[in-house]
Amino acid sequence: MEVMQVLHMNGGMGKTSYAKNSFLPRKVISMTKPIMEAAITALFSTVAATLPTSLAIADMGCSTGPNALFAVSEIINIVIDLCKVMKHELPEFQVFLNDLPRNDFNTLFSSFLPRFQGKLSEQLKSKYGVSATFPCFVNGVPGSFYGRLFARESLHLIHSSYSLMWLSQVPRGLEGNKGNIYMARSSPPKVLRAYYKQFQRDFSTFLKCRGQELLVRGRMVLILLGRRSDDPSSKECCYIWELLAIALNQMVSEGLVEEQKLDSFNIPQYTPSPKEVQGEVQKQGSFSIDCLEASEVNWSILATDSDSDIVLKDGGYNLARCMRAMAEPLLIDHFGKEIIDEVFKRYEALLADRMSKEKNAFVNVVISLKKIT
Amino acid sequence: MEVMQVLHMNGGMGKTSYAKNSFLPRKVISMTKPIMEAAITALFSTVAATLPTSLAIADMGCSTGPNALFAVSEIINIVIDLCKVMKHELPEFQVFLNDLPRNDFNTLFSSFLPRFQGKLSEQLKSKYGVSATFPCFVNGVPGSFYGRLFARESLHLIHSSYSLMWLSQVPRGLEGNKGNIYMARSSPPKVLRAYYKQFQRDFSTFLKCRGQELLVRGRMVLILLGRRSDDPSSKECCYIWELLAIALNQMVSEGLVEEQKLDSFNIPQYTPSPKEVQGEVQKQGSFSIDCLEASEVNWSILATDSDSDIVLKDGGYNLARCMRAMAEPLLIDHFGKEIIDEVFKRYEALLADRMSKEKNAFVNVVISLKKIT
Repeated sequence: MEVMQVLHMNGGMGKTSYAKNSFLPRKVISMTKPIMEAAITALFSTVAATLPTSLAIADMGCSTGPNALFAVSEIINIVIDLCKVMKHELPEFQVFLNDLPRNDFNTLFSSFLPRFQGKLSEQLKSKYGVSATFPCFVNGVPGSFYGRLFARESLHLIHSSYSLMWLSQVPRGLEGNKGNIYMARSSPPKVLRAYYKQFQRDFSTFLKCRGQELLVRGRMVLILLGRRSDDPSSKECCYIWELLAIALNQMVSEGLVEEQKLDSFNIPQYTPSPKEVQGEVQKQGSFSIDCLEASEVNWSILATDSDSDIVLKDGGYNLARCMRAMAEPLLIDHFGKEIIDEVFKRYEALLADRMSKEKNAFVNVVISLKKIT
Repeated sequence: MEVMQVLHMNGGMGKTSYAKNSFLPRKVISMTKPIMEAAITALFSTVAATLPTSLAIADMGCSTGPNALFAVSEIINIVIDLCKVMKHELPEFQVFLNDLPRNDFNTLFSSFLPRFQGKLSEQLKSKYGVSATFPCFVNGVPGSFYGRLFARESLHLIHSSYSLMWLSQVPRGLEGNKGNIYMARSSPPKVLRAYYKQFQRDFSTFLKCRGQELLVRGRMVLILLGRRSDDPSSKECCYIWELLAIALNQMVSEGLVEEQKLDSFNIPQYTPSPKEVQGEVQKQGSFSIDCLEASEVNWSILATDSDSDIVLKDGGYNLARCMRAMAEPLLIDHFGKEIIDEVFKRYEALLADRMSKEKNAFVNVVISLKKIT
C-alpha cells in the first residue's frame, strides 16, 4: 500500500505495491497483537448481543503479497479463540481489503486468497471438527483511504498497518528544502510546517471517513511509522531518508543527477508523534482512545531472516532492499529508471556503514480507537 | 464472466473474461431495462422506510471491459430517477462486482471504474446540481457464484446477465456424445439428462446462496441464454454449437484434430427453458417470481455496429469473433493453441453461410424474483 499511496499522489505510474510485504516482517506486525486482542475483546463485550450473524472487518492499505492477508488472519484467529472462550457461535466474516486501484488485486485474489481461505478451513476442522468452507467473504476495495470507501455504519473493525504515514500528496510549499528529500535537520521551519499541515488534513480526513463507516462502538487499530520526539526532523524518523538524500547528492556532485531535479523531489510521508496523533483524534471527535503506544523496531530487524530470526550479515543489503521496495516507484517517477541501481548501490553502502557504527531504530506508533458518536 | 466460469470448472488456465463484453451489445442488455425498473420500483415500495442510508447491489459475473459496469450504471440511473420522482433522498450505493478470482479485476479497477465514477459524479451535478463525488462504493468480489459470497441478508438487489447459463463443471456421464460438443439432436437421452441434472444442481445452489444473502423482499433480476422449446437439444439453443462441432469434425476427418480429443470435449453450458427455470425457483423455495420472459435476439444483432446500428456485411466474422471470445479459452485448454485460428476460420465460414440462408436467434430468458423467506 505505502508505495501505491505515494504513486497516487504523484499522478500514478507503474504498478508496485509490495512495500509492506518487503518492509516489515510479520513479527513486527505481531508485536501489536495484544492491542488488537484487547480491541476485539472490547468489541465483543459491547456488541455481543447484536453480533452473531456477521463481523465486517476492513484492512486499509492491504497491498499485495504473502503478508497482505496476515493482519486479517491474525484478527480472525483472535475472534475464533474468543468465540471458543465465550462459547459464542462463530460469526460469518466479511473482509474488505482496501488499496489504491493500481494495487495488484489480481495476484491477491488468484494466488494469496485461495491459500488464506484454505488455511481458515483447516482451522475450522482442527478447532471445531467441521469440514466446510470457512465462512469468510472477501472483497477488494479499490480507492484512496483519504476518502469514503464503505457505506455508513457498515464496519465493526478497521485495521491498518504501515500505510497511514503516507500522505495524500507531496505537501505544497516545500521550496527551500534544498538538498533534502524529506524533513531534515537542515529543513527550514516552513517546510516542517507544510509537512505537518498536510498530515493534519489527511489524518483528520481519514478519521472523519472511518468514523462515518464504523458502527458506533466499533474499533479501529492503526499502526504507522512515527517518532517519539516532538521534533519532526528528529533522527529517529528522518535519518533513513537523509542517507538516501546523501546518495542522491553525491550523484548530483558527480553530474549524474540534475541538481534541480533533486531540489524538487520530496517524499510524501509524515511520521507523527503519539502526541500529534492524539491531538488529531481529539480534535476530529469521532473516536475515543483506548490505547496509544510508541515502540522501537531496530533497523537490524530488517536484516534478520523472517523464518529463523538469524541476523544476516549483509544488513545494508536487506535494509536497502526494503527501502527500495518503498521508494523506488517514487524515484523512477521523478528521476527516471536509469539512476535507480546506482542510487541504491550507494544507499546500501551508506546504510551498511551506519549500521556497523551505531544503533538506529524505526518508531512504531500504535493507536487503538473506539467510535463514540 | 462466462468464460471464466468455465475455466474455473476445467481447472483453470489463462486469464480471459471479455466474453460478456464481446458477446452481447449493450442494446441487448438494455432490452431488459423495463423489468429492472419494475423490480427496483417494487423494492422501493417495500423497503422505503428502511432504505435511506445505503443500497447494496451485486452483479454476479461482471467480467472486465467497457460493459462490465453497464448493468450497474443502468440500475443506479433507475434509482436516481425513482428518487427524483418519489422525492426520496438519494441513498449511498454499495456495489459488489463478482467474478471468478482469475477475472481481470486490475483493469476493471484501474481503467473502467474511474470512468464509471466520473460519469456518476457528472450525473450528480446535472440532476442534483451538486459538485461532489457520487456516493458509490465499489467492491470486487472474487469467487464462484455457485457458493456463498456475501454476508447473510446483506444485499438489496442482485443482477446477473449472460453468466448463469454456464455450469459449475462439465456434467459427468457425457460418454456417448460422440461427434458433438454440446447437447445436439444426435445426443443420446442420457447426455441430455446429465446436462439437465447439472443445471438443476447448479441453479438450485445459486438460488439457495443468493436467498441467504438477500434481505427479505430484496430483488434479483437474472438474464441468461436459454430456449423457448421444451426440447433441450432444440436448434434455438444448440445450433450455434453444432456449427462449431462441424468445424471440429472436419478437422478430425482431415487428421488435424484427434477424434478422441473431440469426443471428450463438451461445453459446460445449459440454456434452460422458462419452465425449467420456474421449476427450480419453486422447488428451492426462497423466491417468488415477479416476471419471467423469453425473448429472441437475432444472430445478426452481433453483426451490427453497437454505436450506429448499421448491420455489418461480414456477419459471420462478427458472430464468430463473439463466439470465439466465449469459447476460445475452453478450446485452448482442451485442444491446445495450435488449432484455434483454423477452427475459427472454418466456424466463421459456416456461420456466414447459415446467416445468408436462414434466420437464427438466441433466446434470452429473463426472470425477476423477490426474496420471500
